[in-house]
Amino acid sequence: LARFKLSSAPASAARYRLRVGYVDTDKAGVVHHSRYLAYLEAARIEMLRANGLDYRAFEVETGLALPIVEVHMAYRSPARFDDVLDVDTWVSAMSRAKIVFDAKIFRGKDLLHESSVVVACVNMDEARPVSIPDRVVSACAPR
Amino acid sequence: LARFKLSSAPASAARYRLRVGYVDTDKAGVVHHSRYLAYLEAARIEMLRANGLDYRAFEVETGLALPIVEVHMAYRSPARFDDVLDVDTWVSAMSRAKIVFDAKIFRGKDLLHESSVVVACVNMDEARPVSIPDRVVSACAPR
Amino acid sequence: LARFKLSSAPASAARYRLRVGYVDTDKAGVVHHSRYLAYLEAARIEMLRANGLDYRAFEVETGLALPIVEVHMAYRSPARFDDVLDVDTWVSAMSRAKIVFDAKIFRGKDLLHESSVVVACVNMDEARPVSIPDRVVSACAPR
Amino acid sequence: LARFKLSSAPASAARYRLRVGYVDTDKAGVVHHSRYLAYLEAARIEMLRANGLDYRAFEVETGLALPIVEVHMAYRSPARFDDVLDVDTWVSAMSRAKIVFDAKIFRGKDLLHESSVVVACVNMDEARPVSIPDRVVSACAPR
Repeated sequence: LARFKLSSAPASAARYRLRVGYVDTDKAGVVHHSRYLAYLEAARIEMLRANGLDYRAFEVETGLALPIVEVHMAYRSPARFDDVLDVDTWVSAMSRAKIVFDAKIFRGKDLLHESSVVVACVNMDEARPVSIPDRVVSACAPR
Repeated sequence: LARFKLSSAPASAARYRLRVGYVDTDKAGVVHHSRYLAYLEAARIEMLRANGLDYRAFEVETGLALPIVEVHMAYRSPARFDDVLDVDTWVSAMSRAKIVFDAKIFRGKDLLHESSVVVACVNMDEARPVSIPDRVVSACAPR
Repeated sequence: LARFKLSSAPASAARYRLRVGYVDTDKAGVVHHSRYLAYLEAARIEMLRANGLDYRAFEVETGLALPIVEVHMAYRSPARFDDVLDVDTWVSAMSRAKIVFDAKIFRGKDLLHESSVVVACVNMDEARPVSIPDRVVSACAPR
Repeated sequence: LARFKLSSAPASAARYRLRVGYVDTDKAGVVHHSRYLAYLEAARIEMLRANGLDYRAFEVETGLALPIVEVHMAYRSPARFDDVLDVDTWVSAMSRAKIVFDAKIFRGKDLLHESSVVVACVNMDEARPVSIPDRVVSACAPR
């Protein structure tokens, strides 16, 4: 069986709150498993903003993007329509080429979902990998 | 960094063909990373159908469902609008409680995406885990 | 050409604020036209909540739902990634069987989108239309 | 109440067949109302292809796009998971600036959904409206 290991959430984890939409549910009455990727994406963007990086401006000014290259998710308990969820996000590892964002999603004190999302950095025009720029590194490792 | 190991596609892998929709793309001009989960889901359902299991009838007749409990995905190369993709799916492992569906997504001969999706079996009314029924086991291990 | 007429927003219109996600965009660099329906849905649910109707509890307690039966939308100007949008929603007409929710979506002072969404009321078990219950009527016509 | 009038399907309507995915459903057990826009979009693209216009190549070669400017939809009967649907699409009106695509969605002989979608033509770089090019006009009015 596939395995992955999540780090523990540090005190510096960023918390993003959202409410589950009707459109996010499926006929089993729970949030469709694909929708968690949208929740995690919004949480990462807000984490970067809180740390001083406006991701929209970053793409426009640099012509770079941070595409997802790997995703690992464990579904612990289903989220449901109208639930208020808290997504705690932090950077668990970083190299010149990649950043690993870990996250835990909670409904109140209940852990619903754990994940690890790996992003790279590419030049959008040529789809060529580049080193993670300093302004991104800074936003990922706040002091 | 998180790691996972994919099995090699056996000769018995089921092939599902789809065309990428405009709605599947994002502003980077490629398929959004969350959409692959929809492609994989459709491919699993068609694989089960080809092996004799009508998944819709299964849910209705048994009150059971096969929720996703773990997902691992590696994005090798981006898919784009209007691409014709082939999703090869097979069962790489099975226990009394879980089934692991591995998949490779190709555009022609180019490998774009690899994944491993773990499903459990639950009673939908009580959200209680149950053993994988024989009819599902049979559809996952065709001779 | 198809035509529809929107009412003017009354002072009692409910305002719902959201931020556009990356997942909401398409390869044209703007919000995909289908995503506005998700924005409008969230705005209706928050409008009902503000007027005293918890829509989730309503479905559970009554076995009823408010399915969409008609949608009319006019796209005035595109929304983009990371935009903050305000959705103003109000009830423009009501009968025993149907409610018409009108909405205007703004980015700051710029009008981006106008819509009219007609819902009916059905018994979920039998998919049978029923009269709009008083608690819904009250939440739609606040004094 | 908002009103719109659909033309009757001509013999030349293009038929596009699809199967409803699990991801398309919501907690009411039916296809979410927003997903029909994705079905209609795929049907339009296939209609254009059948009439000699490769829409992907068109965007690349001309820098133009056909954004949606108006949508009208009537939901007659719900579609469900795993249903096979037929989307009949045709052009009901055309001007120098706009094309109106009408569609009816069937499950077997049952009419589930009727719609009218108005598209314009824009220069993607400047988001400036332009006249519908001849190659698009030809693909919309096949003899």
